[in-house]
Amino acid sequence: MEAEKTVRNKQVLFRSFITGAPREENMELMTAETELMVPAGSGAVLVKNLYLSCDPYMRGRMREYYGSYIPPFQPHKVIEGFGVSKVIDSDTPSFIVGDLVCGMTGWEEYSLILKVDGLRRIEISDIPLPYYLGLLGMPGFTAYVGFLEVCSPKNGDYVFVSAASGAVGQIVGQLAKLNGCFVVGSAGAKRKVDLLKNKLGFDDAFNYNDELDLDLALKRYFPSGIDIYFDNVGGPMLDAALLNMRTHGRIAVCGLVSQHGVSDPEGIHNLFCLISKRIQMQGFLQSDYLHLFPQFLDKITEYYRQGKIVYIEDIVEGIENAPKAFVGLFSGRNTGKQVVCVSED
Amino acid sequence: MEAEKTVRNKQVLFRSFITGAPREENMELMTAETELMVPAGSGAVLVKNLYLSCDPYMRGRMREYYGSYIPPFQPHKVIEGFGVSKVIDSDTPSFIVGDLVCGMTGWEEYSLILKVDGLRRIEISDIPLPYYLGLLGMPGFTAYVGFLEVCSPKNGDYVFVSAASGAVGQIVGQLAKLNGCFVVGSAGAKRKVDLLKNKLGFDDAFNYNDELDLDLALKRYFPSGIDIYFDNVGGPMLDAALLNMRTHGRIAVCGLVSQHGVSDPEGIHNLFCLISKRIQMQGFLQSDYLHLFPQFLDKITEYYRQGKIVYIEDIVEGIENAPKAFVGLFSGRNTGKQVVCVSED
Repeated sequence: MEAEKTVRNKQVLFRSFITGAPREENMELMTAETELMVPAGSGAVLVKNLYLSCDPYMRGRMREYYGSYIPPFQPHKVIEGFGVSKVIDSDTPSFIVGDLVCGMTGWEEYSLILKVDGLRRIEISDIPLPYYLGLLGMPGFTAYVGFLEVCSPKNGDYVFVSAASGAVGQIVGQLAKLNGCFVVGSAGAKRKVDLLKNKLGFDDAFNYNDELDLDLALKRYFPSGIDIYFDNVGGPMLDAALLNMRTHGRIAVCGLVSQHGVSDPEGIHNLFCLISKRIQMQGFLQSDYLHLFPQFLDKITEYYRQGKIVYIEDIVEGIENAPKAFVGLFSGRNTGKQVVCVSED
Repeated sequence: MEAEKTVRNKQVLFRSFITGAPREENMELMTAETELMVPAGSGAVLVKNLYLSCDPYMRGRMREYYGSYIPPFQPHKVIEGFGVSKVIDSDTPSFIVGDLVCGMTGWEEYSLILKVDGLRRIEISDIPLPYYLGLLGMPGFTAYVGFLEVCSPKNGDYVFVSAASGAVGQIVGQLAKLNGCFVVGSAGAKRKVDLLKNKLGFDDAFNYNDELDLDLALKRYFPSGIDIYFDNVGGPMLDAALLNMRTHGRIAVCGLVSQHGVSDPEGIHNLFCLISKRIQMQGFLQSDYLHLFPQFLDKITEYYRQGKIVYIEDIVEGIENAPKAFVGLFSGRNTGKQVVCVSED
């Protein structure tokens, strides 16, 4: 039997439950000693984390509310999140040392993963590894099912996407173009608007911070109205979109990021539009559509290889910068999908 | 050629556009002289109006807004609405003198109807005539398609109906029972709650005016949550229902009567529930489902004859009482479907 080998393992712990927007103080950096060996009989894998994903849904896990589709984080424990990792020890035949995997891991340098069912081996080698957290990961799949399954797009539909340069929005916009739609995105900074127009192929885009009246802004970009609103933000933008929907319009409610940080958010006033315009508003979670995941992987990989889809990431280096990167999601600091690079290999 | 015969014709005119809740002063009584003969070549019918319908949607026609699915009333013209009428002269082969018809007519004793396409001959004689404005009219059809088509009920579903003793709600509740659901209704008065429980077959009912906290009230009646919310009121009740929906719940948005009278309605705050619970919210209009109207008539007539469905009306006598009856809809003065009896034959 080999001598026991331990390493120093930098970790990000969850400190305590929050009510408003996440702050860096809600997390803390620690260094643990971790044994680089899977306990025999555990069926677990030990991974070295390469890339970690910062996703807005994680804010929901910072509240002490157990009735949701996913349980809260545990105070004083390592934060959980999606990651791309390398297997360095394995007690299961499903994975061998050297495998690259993606799935739920810990915000730390090395993780012992007991529930290996949620891990997926990365088989395709010509895709950048962090893309498995975005384009080919949960955000990409959210865009795919949210747009294609929930919004039922038709050729020629007018599509509006908020938070359009974000992890999900940028894919929704590109899928809309690939499905023959006219698509306009909103974002909160000029650099993002430029990306939407010049790199992501949106027909048009605007900075909501430059608009005094979101209703008028939408009327300018959609003079004949919106068929599909892919809502990543909620709040006043949703209220403005309701006023501009066309008859039989569809709203996919994907995220309400504008409301995460607001302790007493302003209400939505324009739901009366639902009736006269017969609008369907549908909240959804990608996890209800997992049967479509293989189809999604094939399709998006093909689009990527054909150069029909691109993906913008915002990668910060070093696990010690993960809390700041995560907190930045809620003020729009990131440009594109926020990833933390823990180690390149 | 017969001598010209004119009669005094009491009418209710629309006075001017409104912003808040309708008031009696928004309408005025006039008496016109009306010729009891259809102009030759007009293709029209002249009818004597027997029953007129007071419906909440008519408030929408009192606003100066032309973008809706139905145009506004014209100031200083007779108010339009659904009615049951008797043909007293006809210039079209579609209708003969003595026919009983239902469809769009005027709030007056005698109406010359130029657009006869919207009129339907009443063929069934064992149904009370005013039921063609309720159980077998637009409200009944709204309940039928709203519940069966929009809500997709399943046996055992937990159903909540607001404004449950109203023209639409009372039918929704009975259809829910006929489809094997558990159904609870809310209303704004004890006499209405009693009707829901004792006459309309709801499993339970409550008076929302007696509840300090609508969320807690719904938790009491639906300890394991709501599958279907048939929303006739919007506002705080919708917000409370959102908190109590079950996963994959469905909300049919039929009316927002609680908001009609409010110039600056409070917003809806709980749309975040749409995502975690994957709720579908669907606004609808019965007019999108007219292909189902014959099926509806057959089915509901059969239920009625079998004693499986009952209908509660609030009938006021005399066209001069129509404005007051209409205004009363918005404060819940009526118990059941509000009808005005202009003449019994």
